[in-house]
Amino acid sequence: MAAPLSGPEIERLVQLLSRLPGLGPRSARRAALVLIKKKETLLQPLAAALEEAGRVIKVCGTCGNLDTSEPCGVCADPRRDASLMCVVEDVADLWALERAAVFRGRYHVLGGTLSALDGRGPDQLNFGALVERVKAGGVREVVLGLNATVEGQTTAHYVMDLISPLGVAVTRLAHGVPVGGELDYLDEGTLAAAFAARRAM
Amino acid sequence: MAAPLSGPEIERLVQLLSRLPGLGPRSARRAALVLIKKKETLLQPLAAALEEAGRVIKVCGTCGNLDTSEPCGVCADPRRDASLMCVVEDVADLWALERAAVFRGRYHVLGGTLSALDGRGPDQLNFGALVERVKAGGVREVVLGLNATVEGQTTAHYVMDLISPLGVAVTRLAHGVPVGGELDYLDEGTLAAAFAARRAM
Repeated sequence: MAAPLSGPEIERLVQLLSRLPGLGPRSARRAALVLIKKKETLLQPLAAALEEAGRVIKVCGTCGNLDTSEPCGVCADPRRDASLMCVVEDVADLWALERAAVFRGRYHVLGGTLSALDGRGPDQLNFGALVERVKAGGVREVVLGLNATVEGQTTAHYVMDLISPLGVAVTRLAHGVPVGGELDYLDEGTLAAAFAARRAM
Repeated sequence: MAAPLSGPEIERLVQLLSRLPGLGPRSARRAALVLIKKKETLLQPLAAALEEAGRVIKVCGTCGNLDTSEPCGVCADPRRDASLMCVVEDVADLWALERAAVFRGRYHVLGGTLSALDGRGPDQLNFGALVERVKAGGVREVVLGLNATVEGQTTAHYVMDLISPLGVAVTRLAHGVPVGGELDYLDEGTLAAAFAARRAM
């Protein structure tokens, strides 16, 4: 799939773009073409935004969030409840919860899930810092905001085993029918969970 | 869909990435996160590749191709047949034909198609330069390598009317069953074209 005419500069750009999630080789080529055509309005601003993001964005040493300040905006915010901590797999999950604006405590980003298949053991994830934060005191409840996947739930049980001896409450997000979801399209596991946790109206 | 914590730098990066074809707001956020995580191996090389592409890539003043040299590699190549010219809508189409390596003539990129719906008339496309190149002599055959869409075929007829008075042969790509295609999945128009243009085995 070489484009022999277009020079190594375009090929290099296409090759790097195709490593972004959601872009294959063909869409990366289309994206490169759009970028080159919109040099002033898209290519140059994107190059500048990448350069700046790479320069100013750091990993928060406390929770693992990404931000321009260290500690991050969540950890530094005195209005947030330091006695609540939500454990998430990834910064994307932290962002999703912040967009929903339902949680006013602090976070702990594990950096992934345990996965025997992908060879990710406890050493590769941010468990040590989590235990230290809980041991340091002040945390009353740890909410496990992990994905409802096999890996996510395996990780949730592992975190549960680590933290419950420390005398803090450990909770997890509820399972059930997604808001706006139709029963007809839901799997048996979700329906069973929703039935088991049914509530009085 | 604001991510209020992540700072204006990340938001700006997500917003620019979401303008690339193939990336929506959600996938742009995932892409930004991957970029920030892979700062040394992906973000910085991409920023550099964008900067370099923006600096060195030019539009060929002869045919409209994109390349680092002016005239472009195709126009400058003496081994290519200057008596054959293929008219295409877009640089992406030129690249597709070059990947197939079936055409050894030169190109003319129109920069789009005529479209009453989108308000694109003959003034917005590169027709003037096309007529001049053909009038300058040396061109024996013009191949219309335009898409088999309504707009593409409207444009093909317009080019035909412009060029046929100049005394050069005008051809178009064959319509028919795509190689590897199954009849069951083809539309009536393609099947009718394939039948009408059937050939002895």
